[in-house]
Amino acid sequence: MRANYKLKRLFVGQPLIEGVAIAAEKDQSHYLLTVLRMEAGSELLLFNGRDGEWRAKLEMPAKKKAVLIPLALERPQPPHPDLVFCFAPIKAGRLDWVVEKAVEMGAGAIRPVMTQFTQNTRLNPEKMNAWITEAAEQCGVLAIPKLESAVRLTELLEGWDSSRRLVFCDEDSATDNPIEALAPLKSEKLALLVGPEGGFSDEERDMLRAKPFVTAIPLGPRILRADTAAVAALTAVQMICGDWNGNH
Amino acid sequence: MRANYKLKRLFVGQPLIEGVAIAAEKDQSHYLLTVLRMEAGSELLLFNGRDGEWRAKLEMPAKKKAVLIPLALERPQPPHPDLVFCFAPIKAGRLDWVVEKAVEMGAGAIRPVMTQFTQNTRLNPEKMNAWITEAAEQCGVLAIPKLESAVRLTELLEGWDSSRRLVFCDEDSATDNPIEALAPLKSEKLALLVGPEGGFSDEERDMLRAKPFVTAIPLGPRILRADTAAVAALTAVQMICGDWNGNH
Repeated sequence: MRANYKLKRLFVGQPLIEGVAIAAEKDQSHYLLTVLRMEAGSELLLFNGRDGEWRAKLEMPAKKKAVLIPLALERPQPPHPDLVFCFAPIKAGRLDWVVEKAVEMGAGAIRPVMTQFTQNTRLNPEKMNAWITEAAEQCGVLAIPKLESAVRLTELLEGWDSSRRLVFCDEDSATDNPIEALAPLKSEKLALLVGPEGGFSDEERDMLRAKPFVTAIPLGPRILRADTAAVAALTAVQMICGDWNGNH
Repeated sequence: MRANYKLKRLFVGQPLIEGVAIAAEKDQSHYLLTVLRMEAGSELLLFNGRDGEWRAKLEMPAKKKAVLIPLALERPQPPHPDLVFCFAPIKAGRLDWVVEKAVEMGAGAIRPVMTQFTQNTRLNPEKMNAWITEAAEQCGVLAIPKLESAVRLTELLEGWDSSRRLVFCDEDSATDNPIEALAPLKSEKLALLVGPEGGFSDEERDMLRAKPFVTAIPLGPRILRADTAAVAALTAVQMICGDWNGNH
């Protein structure tokens, strides 16, 4: 079922149960009442990543204090997407963008991976989780991707669950089109790995290609920046193997 | 032939002819000598959108003055991409990103289109051209997309060359996967139209669907922001019909 475009959508931590009031956090009250200037009786949508999306009514028992009353389930909680999005963090100012895009494109888990050319190694998980929530609010995503802890590429590969195929974007591929490499993976559990600006090192590329659970894919004839590669690869994977194609 | 990753790539306006010196513009000299601290004798790559990509040598006849000597053709000028990328300009801060992505993804022309929900109607073509050049430098794109003048959607459709198919991203589609709609267009001249944040109005969507030269495509089951939709749609079109698939 498609998301409702018209109502404001808000993430809350609390359970969503018909008629059971939720006191908004201070910053949420500020946002709803001062920024959006919503009035008592207004409707909005609530989700918590577990209980689906609820139409809710805003009440205002005191000035600057919002209370939210879930009225009716609008969309049931969808199955959590299985796709794991692994990426080498890029510089601030583009990093938030990549995280936002992973949410929009239906990642189930987001995992920062440190590679040889990774520039940005100081990550702020709290900030990253805020970007994830915000992107979910904006784009009607109910299944909020889990932010996993950062890991070195070597460790990621050593600990890999080999029942999950790791698709990596290989800028040094001999072909341009990922369809052929992706088509056989339609019924597999998938993870995607996108490199940093500057790509993977030759050593890393060799290491990846040598793993039996890895599939290398090309992303066209041009060099793509890391943020573009992230969206292009997510599009290709979702379109050929994923939930654009009826799989989860 | 793939682009060389290692050398700095610079756009110049002048013709590129072996041994014929090019005086760098003032801001280019500053960039090469002060920002990058390149020294006389260093090599870089030059392109002008017409003569292919040249390996060149930096000379410094005076302090803070760079002269560039084309040495050898590295990559011949590719055919100009035929894909026209039409998009409703979004707010500053995301607009540059969309223009950059259109260049990376191989648009041949970039055309701003004003729709009912378009927020950003004050465009700066000079700035947009600078983004285009910068993206081409960064990503090894030799065929620089032409920035066309902004047009209202109604006028765009009235003046449309009906031998070119206009693919538009229809967020109100009944299906999720664009492959079926794109597959029959492999040998057609194509343009892509991406709407603004908030999408097209119902009226605009009806108007688009009624045109015989328009194909509506879905972009998955989730709402995408306009910038995400731009990259996702360019990926889908290039992968199924375009130069990821051997067409131009």
